[in-house]
Amino acid sequence: MKVLEDRIRKDGKVLDSNILKVDSFFNHQVDVKLLSEMADEVMKTYKDRGVTKVLTLETSGIPLAIMVAYKLDVPLIYANKTDAFNLEGDTYHSFVHSFTKKTEYQVRVVKDYIDSSDNVLIVDDFLAEGASTCGLLDIVEQSGAALEAVVIGIEKTFQNGGKYLRESGIEVFSLAKISRLEDNEIIFE
Amino acid sequence: MKVLEDRIRKDGKVLDSNILKVDSFFNHQVDVKLLSEMADEVMKTYKDRGVTKVLTLETSGIPLAIMVAYKLDVPLIYANKTDAFNLEGDTYHSFVHSFTKKTEYQVRVVKDYIDSSDNVLIVDDFLAEGASTCGLLDIVEQSGAALEAVVIGIEKTFQNGGKYLRESGIEVFSLAKISRLEDNEIIFE
Repeated sequence: MKVLEDRIRKDGKVLDSNILKVDSFFNHQVDVKLLSEMADEVMKTYKDRGVTKVLTLETSGIPLAIMVAYKLDVPLIYANKTDAFNLEGDTYHSFVHSFTKKTEYQVRVVKDYIDSSDNVLIVDDFLAEGASTCGLLDIVEQSGAALEAVVIGIEKTFQNGGKYLRESGIEVFSLAKISRLEDNEIIFE
Repeated sequence: MKVLEDRIRKDGKVLDSNILKVDSFFNHQVDVKLLSEMADEVMKTYKDRGVTKVLTLETSGIPLAIMVAYKLDVPLIYANKTDAFNLEGDTYHSFVHSFTKKTEYQVRVVKDYIDSSDNVLIVDDFLAEGASTCGLLDIVEQSGAALEAVVIGIEKTFQNGGKYLRESGIEVFSLAKISRLEDNEIIFE
């Protein structure tokens, strides 16, 4: 998606060969106009695919997922990362290893909100090693729902997540694909 | 706001005299159509008030704040709760005491994104004792920006946050005001 690639080139910051910082428009400050254009791009492919729920993971997946759910006119569910005090009831849960924070955490979705009648679109901000996506996929599988696809804002194709998911037969739709980060340069696929 | 009050009456769950659970449409699963109507209601008052930034706190403030920022067509900034690995640069920070989780945490905003030229609308999902709102107000004050108002999805007026803020001269706009929770009944103001 050209407008997103241009913005990443302009405002993204390469911290090292693995980490791209997009805090100025996507992950801390959010450019809602760009976010809306990203969701419109997702609509072109998914508006008539019978999606019934959008699923993401707190925190940074929420902005794009909200906008996609809004345009699809279906509910959004954001999986919670911790044993949130107010999150009661029977839950699906999975464990996710965070490569950036070097910890493992639990992700949970209350069972009432996804079941076997659903067709789920997973939406997340980044895809790198795919750890958090796999946690969400595990939850969809536990629920018996169908998975329509995985939609990603920015995929780092030099890490293994996208390759692994596609080889598993999962449709992955990424709005921007970065094949390399080096010497402060961002190379798109 | 009648549609929100009706939905809280229908789907809200009273856990005890302090805690209202709205996980089925606002805080875990999000009804984006209702969210959009809530943002439209906020627009009636704030669309011509010169707001330049919407500020909220991760996680549960983000959905409403995104929708309000989208309709106001201004950037959203969500303050981060922890020393996030990827959040670099000079930050404004404050400390918030969580009454529900009985812990204290730090909230941070990168200085680049709010300054003295801004007119900020704080948006949050709940107002109870006002702890997280005060953390955000502290950050706005550090930045030198003007504060336009505090917009809240659901205010529990039997707790002290709203009273304290209004007595401090701050404009608080709440879409639903709950004056009592008792015996599984929700009483609105």
